[in-house]
Amino acid sequence: MAYANLPLEKLTEHLERLPGIGRKSANRLAFHLLYMPQADAQALAQAVEEARTRIHECPICCNLTDSPRCPICEDVRRDRSVICVVEDPRNVPAIERTRGYNGLYHVLHGTISPLDGRGPEQLRVKELLHRLSDEGVTEVIMATNPTVEGDYTAMYLSRLLKPLNIKVTRLAYGIPVGGDLEYADEVTLSRSLEGRSEL
Amino acid sequence: MAYANLPLEKLTEHLERLPGIGRKSANRLAFHLLYMPQADAQALAQAVEEARTRIHECPICCNLTDSPRCPICEDVRRDRSVICVVEDPRNVPAIERTRGYNGLYHVLHGTISPLDGRGPEQLRVKELLHRLSDEGVTEVIMATNPTVEGDYTAMYLSRLLKPLNIKVTRLAYGIPVGGDLEYADEVTLSRSLEGRSEL
Repeated sequence: MAYANLPLEKLTEHLERLPGIGRKSANRLAFHLLYMPQADAQALAQAVEEARTRIHECPICCNLTDSPRCPICEDVRRDRSVICVVEDPRNVPAIERTRGYNGLYHVLHGTISPLDGRGPEQLRVKELLHRLSDEGVTEVIMATNPTVEGDYTAMYLSRLLKPLNIKVTRLAYGIPVGGDLEYADEVTLSRSLEGRSEL
Repeated sequence: MAYANLPLEKLTEHLERLPGIGRKSANRLAFHLLYMPQADAQALAQAVEEARTRIHECPICCNLTDSPRCPICEDVRRDRSVICVVEDPRNVPAIERTRGYNGLYHVLHGTISPLDGRGPEQLRVKELLHRLSDEGVTEVIMATNPTVEGDYTAMYLSRLLKPLNIKVTRLAYGIPVGGDLEYADEVTLSRSLEGRSEL
């Protein structure tokens, strides 16, 4: 463009890189940010920075938290003999909402996907094995997404854990195949927790 | 929620307030911001703050700019005898893209809309009148949106300017009625510039 407004273009470019936001939406958001009250715009910018500086992985379960350890790992009322393994931090509140699970979690932060060049070493598998050697865990529930990569990751982990004499189970297929755990409703998720089967 | 992650929830809430972004999208964006490289997240936050601190209205045409005066008002090659009046800063690049206009602009920052409690005093009408008394302007083109409020604003301004012996014209109705100037294609916009009629 001949007449540049650099701060505006820069802001639009940054917004355009976010998922699900195209050029027109980015432009609309940028103008919204310009016209909204100064304090609100600043609060949004600060919320981004604060989230990035304060949120880190729990040293035990690898879930995202702003405490030294995450509140679930800290909670003495949780059953420490079961660990539910999920792909993504967003899956933890999804399972919590069922109110059908009282054990601990382990967040892998991804799946094994050789096509995308992601092997087990990119996931928090080492951290999971470390927990199993210490904590008196008797069951590991695989709650990866019901996709090819999720299933493969669950199979891979179950083979890794079998020699440790730990019961490895998988969420029942009440979840629609090919779907995403994040968007499953509470009842469906509850059913698949109840009907979990040994791998 | 029983297990709170406050910085994450705060970030999600702020994102949810943006136009066109619901709860799920806000959550998805928040996690994207957490997983993207630290430098990119910080750059986005800084772009928001920088846009807010550096962008202001041009003292002449009221367009948004990061220079003391906007580059169009500063450009000596522009025809200073014509002013094109638009509702919104986004309409300026839309008209610039037609390459069919070489005059100056005036940005009203809204329309007159009695139902929403917006009168002429909320718009940059005073600033427009001030320019017309100084600058040797012979024509004012009304390029407000072809909506009820846009038409009403154009009519209001034309009655205000007629006594000053200035030719007041309106963009031709090549623009689809009820549409938004921002999304009109270049050809349609060019046609309506060419076919402008006196009010």
